Amino acid sequence: MNSSITRGFASDNNAGIHPIVLDAIQQANVGHVVAYGDDVYTKNAEIAFRKYFADGIDVYFVLTGTGANVLSLASLTKSINSVVCASTSHINVDECGAPEKFCNCKLLTVETPDGKLTPDAVKKHLHGFGFEHHAQPGVISISQSTEMGTVYTPGEIKALSELAKEYGLYLHADGARIANAAVSLDLGFREFTVEAGVDVLSFGGTKNGMMFGEAVVFFNRELAGDFRYYRKQSTQLLSKMRFIGAQFTAYLESNIWYENAQHANNMAQMLYNSVKDLSGVQITQKVQSNAVFAIIPERIIKPLMEQYFFYMWDESRNEVRWMTSFDTTEEDIEKFTSLLKRLLNR
Amino acid sequence: MNSSITRGFASDNNAGIHPIVLDAIQQANVGHVVAYGDDVYTKNAEIAFRKYFADGIDVYFVLTGTGANVLSLASLTKSINSVVCASTSHINVDECGAPEKFCNCKLLTVETPDGKLTPDAVKKHLHGFGFEHHAQPGVISISQSTEMGTVYTPGEIKALSELAKEYGLYLHADGARIANAAVSLDLGFREFTVEAGVDVLSFGGTKNGMMFGEAVVFFNRELAGDFRYYRKQSTQLLSKMRFIGAQFTAYLESNIWYENAQHANNMAQMLYNSVKDLSGVQITQKVQSNAVFAIIPERIIKPLMEQYFFYMWDESRNEVRWMTSFDTTEEDIEKFTSLLKRLLNR
Amino acid sequence: MNSSITRGFASDNNAGIHPIVLDAIQQANVGHVVAYGDDVYTKNAEIAFRKYFADGIDVYFVLTGTGANVLSLASLTKSINSVVCASTSHINVDECGAPEKFCNCKLLTVETPDGKLTPDAVKKHLHGFGFEHHAQPGVISISQSTEMGTVYTPGEIKALSELAKEYGLYLHADGARIANAAVSLDLGFREFTVEAGVDVLSFGGTKNGMMFGEAVVFFNRELAGDFRYYRKQSTQLLSKMRFIGAQFTAYLESNIWYENAQHANNMAQMLYNSVKDLSGVQITQKVQSNAVFAIIPERIIKPLMEQYFFYMWDESRNEVRWMTSFDTTEEDIEKFTSLLKRLLNR
Amino acid sequence: MNSSITRGFASDNNAGIHPIVLDAIQQANVGHVVAYGDDVYTKNAEIAFRKYFADGIDVYFVLTGTGANVLSLASLTKSINSVVCASTSHINVDECGAPEKFCNCKLLTVETPDGKLTPDAVKKHLHGFGFEHHAQPGVISISQSTEMGTVYTPGEIKALSELAKEYGLYLHADGARIANAAVSLDLGFREFTVEAGVDVLSFGGTKNGMMFGEAVVFFNRELAGDFRYYRKQSTQLLSKMRFIGAQFTAYLESNIWYENAQHANNMAQMLYNSVKDLSGVQITQKVQSNAVFAIIPERIIKPLMEQYFFYMWDESRNEVRWMTSFDTTEEDIEKFTSLLKRLLNR
Repeated sequence: MNSSITRGFASDNNAGIHPIVLDAIQQANVGHVVAYGDDVYTKNAEIAFRKYFADGIDVYFVLTGTGANVLSLASLTKSINSVVCASTSHINVDECGAPEKFCNCKLLTVETPDGKLTPDAVKKHLHGFGFEHHAQPGVISISQSTEMGTVYTPGEIKALSELAKEYGLYLHADGARIANAAVSLDLGFREFTVEAGVDVLSFGGTKNGMMFGEAVVFFNRELAGDFRYYRKQSTQLLSKMRFIGAQFTAYLESNIWYENAQHANNMAQMLYNSVKDLSGVQITQKVQSNAVFAIIPERIIKPLMEQYFFYMWDESRNEVRWMTSFDTTEEDIEKFTSLLKRLLNR
Repeated sequence: MNSSITRGFASDNNAGIHPIVLDAIQQANVGHVVAYGDDVYTKNAEIAFRKYFADGIDVYFVLTGTGANVLSLASLTKSINSVVCASTSHINVDECGAPEKFCNCKLLTVETPDGKLTPDAVKKHLHGFGFEHHAQPGVISISQSTEMGTVYTPGEIKALSELAKEYGLYLHADGARIANAAVSLDLGFREFTVEAGVDVLSFGGTKNGMMFGEAVVFFNRELAGDFRYYRKQSTQLLSKMRFIGAQFTAYLESNIWYENAQHANNMAQMLYNSVKDLSGVQITQKVQSNAVFAIIPERIIKPLMEQYFFYMWDESRNEVRWMTSFDTTEEDIEKFTSLLKRLLNR
Repeated sequence: MNSSITRGFASDNNAGIHPIVLDAIQQANVGHVVAYGDDVYTKNAEIAFRKYFADGIDVYFVLTGTGANVLSLASLTKSINSVVCASTSHINVDECGAPEKFCNCKLLTVETPDGKLTPDAVKKHLHGFGFEHHAQPGVISISQSTEMGTVYTPGEIKALSELAKEYGLYLHADGARIANAAVSLDLGFREFTVEAGVDVLSFGGTKNGMMFGEAVVFFNRELAGDFRYYRKQSTQLLSKMRFIGAQFTAYLESNIWYENAQHANNMAQMLYNSVKDLSGVQITQKVQSNAVFAIIPERIIKPLMEQYFFYMWDESRNEVRWMTSFDTTEEDIEKFTSLLKRLLNR
Repeated sequence: MNSSITRGFASDNNAGIHPIVLDAIQQANVGHVVAYGDDVYTKNAEIAFRKYFADGIDVYFVLTGTGANVLSLASLTKSINSVVCASTSHINVDECGAPEKFCNCKLLTVETPDGKLTPDAVKKHLHGFGFEHHAQPGVISISQSTEMGTVYTPGEIKALSELAKEYGLYLHADGARIANAAVSLDLGFREFTVEAGVDVLSFGGTKNGMMFGEAVVFFNRELAGDFRYYRKQSTQLLSKMRFIGAQFTAYLESNIWYENAQHANNMAQMLYNSVKDLSGVQITQKVQSNAVFAIIPERIIKPLMEQYFFYMWDESRNEVRWMTSFDTTEEDIEKFTSLLKRLLNR
């Protein structure tokens, strides 16, 4: 029985596990180790993170991206705080209100053309300090790469971290697709996180070839004080933690984080190049990572979706999102664009 | 490098993954499937659960035991409710306040000799109904098997569910070690859950050979209405859900749930039989599943712990807990008891 | 010692208690009555509310406007829901995140020119139903009169309640200044609440001459089921409840709710008429209740504020808010506008 | 119409407002003052508190006792903490779970014979520090006087504050009936609060002659940092705050706090002396403040309650609670005990 579906462009979450990661899980499945993270696999993964970021970081492993984000924000806020984020951010639209539920704080959303916050746009929310009637702005949260497939430059992040510092806020980055951003920028993680003033980072692996597992990285270690308790309380502490540690170690040391993201980004470029000049197709966002956003004729959406799974982004203007992943093939792109052309020309 | 530790008696969470489960993960790692549970592996696991319980159940997969418990309780309570549980229950002492955090409700604890609630003990908390100053009793929560290694009979559970019904409460069961209970009772899951009046069950697999993954089983399907949203909001929704589904299908269909639990229980019996008559050792709980509780001389605790990892249970009286797991060997027991005897005789 | 300040235009909360209300408190200060609302004063206030609204309502008394709003929303939402409101609404900007804290739900804000929601603007947030990643839209919340001093017509509210019904949402109205709206519309409360499809109403008295005390009015009584418990749990249950009941009875039966609001509205009209044609003054909102919003020259703001207390509304464009209250006098307006003119002409 | 009921022994909350307090409200009802506490009445009340306690305190005014307790605990805890309290404490049994709701933390209850915590009893809950699975003990909370009518000596409180300090916890005191305790001990407030090591105090006035209004007193001012925001967020910020300030100033400066409490205590003593030797009456608690607990024959409870309102305390043993208040008269006691005797002798 073949239980899988046609490889489409719905989400990088529809892919499976990279063989190197799965192999690492198997290798770790030997004998007993202490549960809940006090094991050598977890320690090794911490070491791998320190190599990529800095010695002075704290890193904790959790289960899901929403878990990483919620726990990051919980480390940076009290319930009386607000968090400034893009209206399109995952924390705002894709977590069923988890930040409000766990942190009890307010999200202040910014409309953006491209999913990226700017100091000017953030500033509109930076008022009411010291006024007890007003939730106190506490965090700026960005996504890198963004939910619109765009990527912040280190300078753009630095500008936000300086604004944060000026007003006494923290800067959080949701790095669910951080590898795609690093490849896009041709930079190490460090340059656009710790060196750009990010305080806490949600570091994702699942969308780029891991089975599951995310990391919360504290560049400001003072903020990590109670993290272990909040992780447990939030239900995000895995008992057989070694299997996250083993995955991350393999993911980071084997360089597949880079290769997978590079491949996915390349596939998005290939898709973009194949469709950008087609009559009837209007690309709506810069293709800087592994997503392509396009407006296409309404009449072709249904037949296209019948053969390839992908999401409507903005129904009001027939905008769709196509995500590539580490296992997208050139043939996938060719077949898809060929169908697309046929439908356009009908 | 051998990264594992001596197989001790600290926790069934220190074991790894049963080969059949790991094999199922590998088999599922083919191509794309829809993320978040709309895939054939998840459907198959649901079917497997229906076979063991009943056609009319709803079953949802989550990541951790704390997640399963918190979401079960969230389905049964509003913040104005209280939950009656044993003072030794996992929800009360081992979840860092997760139920209070997520459900915002009050836990009413009952001191018990053996981790088991009785109708009489529960009744002491069943007052204040309709009195607005008082959190309204809403749920009775039991663990099967209990954190003390004891097991409820179906009749004992039925008595609690009848009490619950009489007072308008729900009955929740934390089945983190439900397989050990089933083996101990020599009964199917059904007889002491749905047929005994349990409304919602946390069904655990991790402690008995799975990598991770728990299920929340609704016997009263009306209670499941918003579960999917709460699961997402609680951070307990896995994107690559197929890897929980594949595990559970293998776990339930291959019968390893039974074999693993039977083995662990047998090992606990062997350990119990090896130590129960030793002078200086006092067994403090009935050995009905895979735990042995014993009071041993203070002087031998440290040297014993230096070679075998296990937990102090009650420091004030030198009571320790020894857990066996699916991969405990007879040799493990022999070596351990032989060391124990040497230390006792010193 | 005169402890009061110059009567300014900062807030109707700076006024004191209307003598009829204070007298009612004194009259109620006789002997013992049962605490927490089971007393004749509370019953009488309920009867007064039923006269103004409908027989089939449930009404509960609470302490503060924020309390009334939070408890109203708690009756209409689960944590997985979202609430659509104007970005300028009190629940969004003036309650320090109390709705997120108590209800744990998400606020979806709408930018408006005048503080009033419209069906078209609300619709932009009405998507993602049934999608577990998305907080489920549950409530539309309006303020009547609005925080911008504007007033919804019954037809405008009906349009919102029909939209709410169509999508399965509830309609909440924050009536902190409901009396000013009723006077403005020259209608009874009924016509623009229960008859316009409002489900739950926060009915305010404090800003219009009461000492303290608000009411939560349920037109859909099924929603009131657990209100008493939530009121206690939210800290909003007064022990000596008779003193809220006595106030509301006097407030509603003596007609001072009407006279006070009418006076405050008239004073706002007088202020508006005195300044609207002044060169340098630009009125920015329709004056429909007891607020006047105006852009005035930056140079005069400080000297004006030195003599009269009022709030900046939008610093970026020198917009200020002037509120009148039940005890504002014609002389207050004359002196204030005369100072304003002097400053403008300097 | 006389709307009051026979003055019974149900609760000191059934009494009204002391005339001196009501007079102060009237005196404060002059002109405009700034809302939300920035007024001279509030400042004066703060000064009055400093006189009674110490210069270096922070004091904030709130609306209800539950509000004061919840906000006190919120200042001392994170959600990962637990609060040790008597099982009979108001925060545990009389606030419908408000502490769990607002603070999200766990209450650890201690069974006591008299409502008083002891270091030995508290210690049983002081374990699991640094263990992430365990809610971290953060606060010891006592009531002074207790819900059982008993009173801690300064030495008993000091012993608890030393224990708290030793383990890194804070000490909170619920002083809903603090005046009764002070009178009972014949000491100033200071000796058994700030000087005994209490960190934060809920100071009540409502049960002793005020209309409403409680204070949260911080002896450790560092803990008060965000109080103003939490007060607003919790719905406990009154707009016309001057009317709490005016009450407290009158209450503290006129000495009625003392006279009222002394009278209520004396009435409890008179009641105690009148009934303690009656055959069939068994006094169950020391009468140290304004409560008398007694076991009486079941057959007389109903007829007694028909004429006097009071509460059953423990139905299982026919234990009742009789509270006296500032307006209880000697005649009330005489008539009540005379009825009691008649019923006993029937």
